[in-house]
Amino acid sequence: MKLIIAIVQDKDSNRLSSQFIEANVRATKLSTTGGFLRSGNTTFMIGIEDERVDEVLAMIKETSHAREQFMTPPVNLDVTMDGASAYPVEVQVGGATVFVLPIEQFHQF
Amino acid sequence: MKLIIAIVQDKDSNRLSSQFIEANVRATKLSTTGGFLRSGNTTFMIGIEDERVDEVLAMIKETSHAREQFMTPPVNLDVTMDGASAYPVEVQVGGATVFVLPIEQFHQF
Amino acid sequence: MKLIIAIVQDKDSNRLSSQFIEANVRATKLSTTGGFLRSGNTTFMIGIEDERVDEVLAMIKETSHAREQFMTPPVNLDVTMDGASAYPVEVQVGGATVFVLPIEQFHQF
Ligand code: NI
Ligand code: NI
Ligand code: NI
Repeated sequence: MKLIIAIVQDKDSNRLSSQFIEANVRATKLSTTGGFLRSGNTTFMIGIEDERVDEVLAMIKETSHAREQFMTPPVNLDVTMDGASAYPVEVQVGGATVFVLPIEQFHQF
Repeated sequence: MKLIIAIVQDKDSNRLSSQFIEANVRATKLSTTGGFLRSGNTTFMIGIEDERVDEVLAMIKETSHAREQFMTPPVNLDVTMDGASAYPVEVQVGGATVFVLPIEQFHQF
Repeated sequence: MKLIIAIVQDKDSNRLSSQFIEANVRATKLSTTGGFLRSGNTTFMIGIEDERVDEVLAMIKETSHAREQFMTPPVNLDVTMDGASAYPVEVQVGGATVFVLPIEQFHQF
C-alpha cells in the first residue's frame, strides 16, 4: 500500500476525478492554492496497492501533464502591444506534482 | 513519532475532534471531499508518539467506523415506490480510512 | 527528495509564502483548522531536495516560531478585572508544527 499525493491544476481535476472513479481508485480531494502565483489547484490523496501505483501515475500524467494550448488574449489588455496581439498565443497549462509515500499501516474501519 | 492521516465522514468529525482534545491528541483538520460520491468528509492530520498510535487508531475506529443506521426516507421522493417506502430503511453511515506514515523529523518551533 | 508538511498560524503564513517564493521553494497551501481551539492555521506541503531541508526548516522557524507579543485587551471585556486591565498583556503567538516525510517517488508531469 502506498499513499500518493498529487497536486494538479483545478482545470484538470474533474477529469481526473472521473477517471479515478471509473478505475475504482479511491481519492480524497483537498482544495489547495499556491506554488508561484499559480492559481487554484487541487490535491488528491490516494491510497493504493503497490501493484497499481504505476497505473495511477499514468492516469495522472495522461490527464494533467503540462502542455501548450492556444489562447486568444482578451483584446482590451493589449493596447500597448502592436497589432499582433489579436492572434492566439501559446500558453502552458496543466502540470502535476506527485509524491509517492511509504505507509506503515493502512486501515479501513 | 508517526503522522496519522485519517479521513472520516463530516458527521463523525466533531465527536472525534472532542475526543482528541480530551485525550490531549493534537490534530489538524482539513476540509476534504470525494471518494465515490461520498459527500463531505474531514481529514485529520495527527502527529503522535509511537506508543500512542494504537490508542489513536482505537479512538478513530470507535467514533467513525462504518455502521448501519435506520433512516426514514423523505416521503416526497418515494412516489414511485409502493407503500413500503414510509418505513425506515437501513443505510450505512460512517467509515474511516486511515494511513500511518513514518516520519524522519518532527519539529515544534 | 523529502516532503515537508508545516502547520503554521494564519498570521504567519503570508510572510512564509513570500519567503518560499523568494527562495524558489515550491509550496502548496492548505487551509486547515484546529489543534486545541487554536484558530485558523495554514498547512504548507513542500517538496524539497534533501540538501535543502535544513534551509527550509530554518525559514519556517524564523518566520513562525512561538513568541510573546504585547497586546492591549479590548476594554469592554475587562469589566470584571480591576484597573490593571487597560495595560497591554503578553500573549503567545505563532508556533509551527513540522513533519519531514520520506518519499519513494517524486514526479513532475
Ligand atoms: Ni497530452
Ligand atoms: Ni459501534
Ligand atoms: Ni524571533
